[in-house]
Amino acid sequence: MIDQRLKSVIRDVPDFPEPGIIFKDITPILKDPGLCEAILDAFEARLQADAIDVIAGIESRGFLFGLMLAQRLGKPFVPVRKQGKLPYHTVAQSYALEYGKATIEIHEDAFIAGTRILVHDDLLATGGTVTATSQLIQKLGGNIAGFAFIISLDFLKGSERLTDYSPNIVSLVGY
Amino acid sequence: MIDQRLKSVIRDVPDFPEPGIIFKDITPILKDPGLCEAILDAFEARLQADAIDVIAGIESRGFLFGLMLAQRLGKPFVPVRKQGKLPYHTVAQSYALEYGKATIEIHEDAFIAGTRILVHDDLLATGGTVTATSQLIQKLGGNIAGFAFIISLDFLKGSERLTDYSPNIVSLVGY
Repeated sequence: MIDQRLKSVIRDVPDFPEPGIIFKDITPILKDPGLCEAILDAFEARLQADAIDVIAGIESRGFLFGLMLAQRLGKPFVPVRKQGKLPYHTVAQSYALEYGKATIEIHEDAFIAGTRILVHDDLLATGGTVTATSQLIQKLGGNIAGFAFIISLDFLKGSERLTDYSPNIVSLVGY
Repeated sequence: MIDQRLKSVIRDVPDFPEPGIIFKDITPILKDPGLCEAILDAFEARLQADAIDVIAGIESRGFLFGLMLAQRLGKPFVPVRKQGKLPYHTVAQSYALEYGKATIEIHEDAFIAGTRILVHDDLLATGGTVTATSQLIQKLGGNIAGFAFIISLDFLKGSERLTDYSPNIVSLVGY
């Protein structure tokens, strides 16, 4: 099963990025081409490709599997980036962090209104960035087709925030 | 030809990230699955896969095609990131920017000594980050197998700095 394969490879790094947090390090996955392929297989099996027009991937780790997943499904890929990184005209969305706030952006010509977007990131935690991404996509007239994560930190209940946008939430391994 | 296809799609954005710079925007490439596949085909045709053990991709845009290229060649992928982003023990390399300096990092267990590394980024400009990446890889005992870029800004002569590390420099479109 993909979840057991992933759990055997994902590395827990304690106290990163700050004391008390146990970070899920996916870099060992990236060293294993067979496992990377199995991740794409699992996403493809669990996603309904004909209900998705575009894959949006969130900077930076969402770029890793985001574009590969888009290629696997034969769909366009759109990057969601931190403020100031996208060169063309953008639409922005700010959101609260534990301390302070963050802003993400998407190109204003990323897709046309009515496009069905699958949102991808490597990991779902509290869902703050993914919720902001969903709001950003809706600002541009897009519809949220669903969400695809490699890892979900289920104890943080991020998925409860996402069901307002789409009930289709795929994650390959939960903690 | 791949270079003409790329030139017809890459978007010039004037005065980004600062006045006087014409930025090469690759986001239109990402929207075109057929062109993304053609990029991988072109890299595969021009690279000598049996002389490469690992692909290293430079944050953030080097993550997009870096992991896909690694998958295409059936090789492990290793991320090179900005300081403070990698969770495990790292080795760091600082380098000069036009104003100030930057630091990049790699996990200390990214590969074993003697591993032959292909360095990938989306675009070669002056070669500052790529040179620092090469030094970082050598610090860890790696050998530079070569470089793979989608775009090379030939007028900045970045490739002249890279030949100290490897003569194998592939870029798909030059300006």
